[in-house]
Amino acid sequence: MPHKNIQIFDTTLRDGEQTPGVSFTPEMKIDIARQLDRLGVDVIEAGFPISSAGDKASVKDIASLGLDCTVCGLARVIKADIDACIDSDVKMVHTFVSTSDIQREHTIKKTREEVVEMAINAVEYIKGHGLECMFSAMDATRTDTDYLISIARAVEDAGADIINIPDTVGVSSPPTMRMLVSDVYRSVRIPIAVHCHNDFGLAVANSLAAVESGASQIQVTMNSLGERAGNADLSQTVMTLESVYGLETGIKTKYLVETARLIERYSGIQIPPTQPIIGANAFSHESGIHSHGVIKESKTFEPGIMTPEMVGHQRRLVLGKHTGKHAVKKILNDAGLEPSDKELNAILERVKDLGDKGKKVTDVDLYAITEAVMGEVAHTEKRIMLEELSVMTGNRVTSTATVRLTLDGKPYVGAMTGVGPVDAALKAVESLVDGNEMRLKEFRIDAITGGSDALAEVMVGVEDSKGRMVTARAAREDIVMASVEALVNAMNRLSAVPKK
Amino acid sequence: MPHKNIQIFDTTLRDGEQTPGVSFTPEMKIDIARQLDRLGVDVIEAGFPISSAGDKASVKDIASLGLDCTVCGLARVIKADIDACIDSDVKMVHTFVSTSDIQREHTIKKTREEVVEMAINAVEYIKGHGLECMFSAMDATRTDTDYLISIARAVEDAGADIINIPDTVGVSSPPTMRMLVSDVYRSVRIPIAVHCHNDFGLAVANSLAAVESGASQIQVTMNSLGERAGNADLSQTVMTLESVYGLETGIKTKYLVETARLIERYSGIQIPPTQPIIGANAFSHESGIHSHGVIKESKTFEPGIMTPEMVGHQRRLVLGKHTGKHAVKKILNDAGLEPSDKELNAILERVKDLGDKGKKVTDVDLYAITEAVMGEVAHTEKRIMLEELSVMTGNRVTSTATVRLTLDGKPYVGAMTGVGPVDAALKAVESLVDGNEMRLKEFRIDAITGGSDALAEVMVGVEDSKGRMVTARAAREDIVMASVEALVNAMNRLSAVPKK
Repeated sequence: MPHKNIQIFDTTLRDGEQTPGVSFTPEMKIDIARQLDRLGVDVIEAGFPISSAGDKASVKDIASLGLDCTVCGLARVIKADIDACIDSDVKMVHTFVSTSDIQREHTIKKTREEVVEMAINAVEYIKGHGLECMFSAMDATRTDTDYLISIARAVEDAGADIINIPDTVGVSSPPTMRMLVSDVYRSVRIPIAVHCHNDFGLAVANSLAAVESGASQIQVTMNSLGERAGNADLSQTVMTLESVYGLETGIKTKYLVETARLIERYSGIQIPPTQPIIGANAFSHESGIHSHGVIKESKTFEPGIMTPEMVGHQRRLVLGKHTGKHAVKKILNDAGLEPSDKELNAILERVKDLGDKGKKVTDVDLYAITEAVMGEVAHTEKRIMLEELSVMTGNRVTSTATVRLTLDGKPYVGAMTGVGPVDAALKAVESLVDGNEMRLKEFRIDAITGGSDALAEVMVGVEDSKGRMVTARAAREDIVMASVEALVNAMNRLSAVPKK
Repeated sequence: MPHKNIQIFDTTLRDGEQTPGVSFTPEMKIDIARQLDRLGVDVIEAGFPISSAGDKASVKDIASLGLDCTVCGLARVIKADIDACIDSDVKMVHTFVSTSDIQREHTIKKTREEVVEMAINAVEYIKGHGLECMFSAMDATRTDTDYLISIARAVEDAGADIINIPDTVGVSSPPTMRMLVSDVYRSVRIPIAVHCHNDFGLAVANSLAAVESGASQIQVTMNSLGERAGNADLSQTVMTLESVYGLETGIKTKYLVETARLIERYSGIQIPPTQPIIGANAFSHESGIHSHGVIKESKTFEPGIMTPEMVGHQRRLVLGKHTGKHAVKKILNDAGLEPSDKELNAILERVKDLGDKGKKVTDVDLYAITEAVMGEVAHTEKRIMLEELSVMTGNRVTSTATVRLTLDGKPYVGAMTGVGPVDAALKAVESLVDGNEMRLKEFRIDAITGGSDALAEVMVGVEDSKGRMVTARAAREDIVMASVEALVNAMNRLSAVPKK
């Protein structure tokens, strides 16, 4: 029988920071620790103090924040490592040693007996300092089970408070994990934690299997960061335990999306739209059948046991070739447009046509189509027409853009400087349009790979004084022109939206 | 007992294309179908012919390619949908209807009995045309089990060749899926497929649980594309079945990475580095303990039962604050540099220091540090010094860059045009350096979000005539200056690398 309350041990700051290419500054680490505490995790593994002077200082800083959660430091079963944790003022030391033959023989080169002795000494040393002690049998899932049980019993006798079973290289399957944790659970009295890696995409499922067999703590990272394919994802683990298994974690799930976005920004590892729970698409619907169902009753094509509100997310209807009539109607009605059934069919056909050509369908595309179809609301006059754009930039000149445009038929000329050519060009356009009326709110350049002449795709969002936003897209080889074109398109569209 | 051979039903072109924001052109679809066939999938669901004229034409095009796999079309249990599939010349029709009360009542508004009758009629109509028939009980995991079994038996009697159990809103857990599939498996003689969504991150684990209970076909997408959080990922499902469960799928796994990259390019949905199996980090190592182990014996900190070669990937050692001595030594030795132990320690400390500041550590950073530490190989003279850069761009001028630099102390001036300011600037620098000696090989701008004045991070790779490549990074608010700075840094470094 699983425990009713499952503890969440977050290692975003330790294993998560070991993600190749990820490095957090000390300031970022403090922000992250505070946010994890606000989220309600039980333990934060703040770092590996022996690994660098910076890491040690950060662990100490976090330990002194006065957080509600327990702050833990990582240490090999080596006195110097444990001393570095003690010096960092953590309440808990997580000490580990390889127990599988393959790691033992190729890395630490100790006998099985020596490893047990090192583990006992480390645990006794930690407990002797009055600290909480977690012991990890690294590579437990590739360790001989009898040996794993014997070391587990030995560290329990030495005073360890909790034993952790890591699937260090992510090779377990749920049935295997269920058996292994059962075996250890029956052999010790102290609580069991698991730490699963995601090499085959099974980290969350293996963690759940461990809970089914009696584990009461799960080690996770935000956004599944970590070595190689990362660790069990906090959001997925918590939401499954809460919503599917009906257990309790103490996590304030409404902070999941904001926490995930903080980690995304600090780690530089983008959350893909298809990421479960926290991704942009998690509660988005494009296909006709799904959108239709969701408009009538969200539970038809969403899990229901998990709503966007529960995790701090939002539901979104997205336009594309699979869009159905009901979704288009809802979006247009929300904008104050009331197309007839016949018009709606014509609009839908053209949206699908654009989608068939492989295009993303933005708001500007939808409104342009709607205008073309519904004669009476046709605002074919564009308020803003770009006549001329010239930009100068370099290492000895301040980036400067000159723009000539007509606004409601009257010509305007203006120049602005910026931190670079894109910034200067957009500022110049903005300077000629009343900032109270509309302003640039979102700006995104998709990653460009391939060459300096690859197509750059720019998406902008422009907001008016009433908080209404319109998105537009432009793709060109010239990043400056793409940016300006998208901005002008969005501004024209926003000023043409009928005000409700 | 699981079946020994598990069939792979790929729905990247159907459910995958329903990913909000994703749309493939007809040409892309043909490329994808050919690649999936090369990969060795059993069935390709090529589209939903009734949904748009373009989709129907694409399904027909794919059906006529003469692929080894079976080409399938999707249809509701409606004659017009099935006719659209028949017109598309597919060999197999996948017909579906909602069986859960919640979907039935809110979307199709039919009684349970009417749904059974519609399903029987659809299956008989498909079989009457001599086509293979798969029947899906949509939202099966939220359907009353007795009713699910009764409709499964009814479609079996009507001639269906295979029944599919979809977890349409991704709410199942592995234990639930195991029980449900067992129940259906005991009630019918035809094979069972499953189609799992990833709302809680359990799509792969639920598919495996179904296999444990007798399912012999799994529906998957490449890169986990699909509605909301997507579908069960092909790569994860296949590699787990093959390497962890010891079953056979017929997939030529060495094509996994190349297939994933094709889908990444065509869908515009970036594969995050932490993605299992296909992500850039899947076989990358930064931390000292892990890198040290992997250099000695890759199995120590990799799954071992899955190697990079098996999936068409590569192992990589990455530099950062967790880098250990062994990884730095290996990278420098490979570049012909032989630092002493003392020098190595000094280099390592400075690499970690850079990492502590939150920086990615590129080759240029490592070499710069190494040069500073090892006096004797210090190439502190930079061959190329950028003196002046001026760029003009706009909608009425051809982007033009003028560069003044010194190469080996001699001044050079040149100008080049380009498709945009970045392209012109890089071409101008390149024009002054012998193209046989070194050339721009890689160029990447990370996605920029936040504002037009956000920091743009540029990474370039420059290759010399001997095929050696050096990477460099620059981050500035001005995308043109960042690009040029990174290029000059990489060129300087490449000309300073001691030739072996």
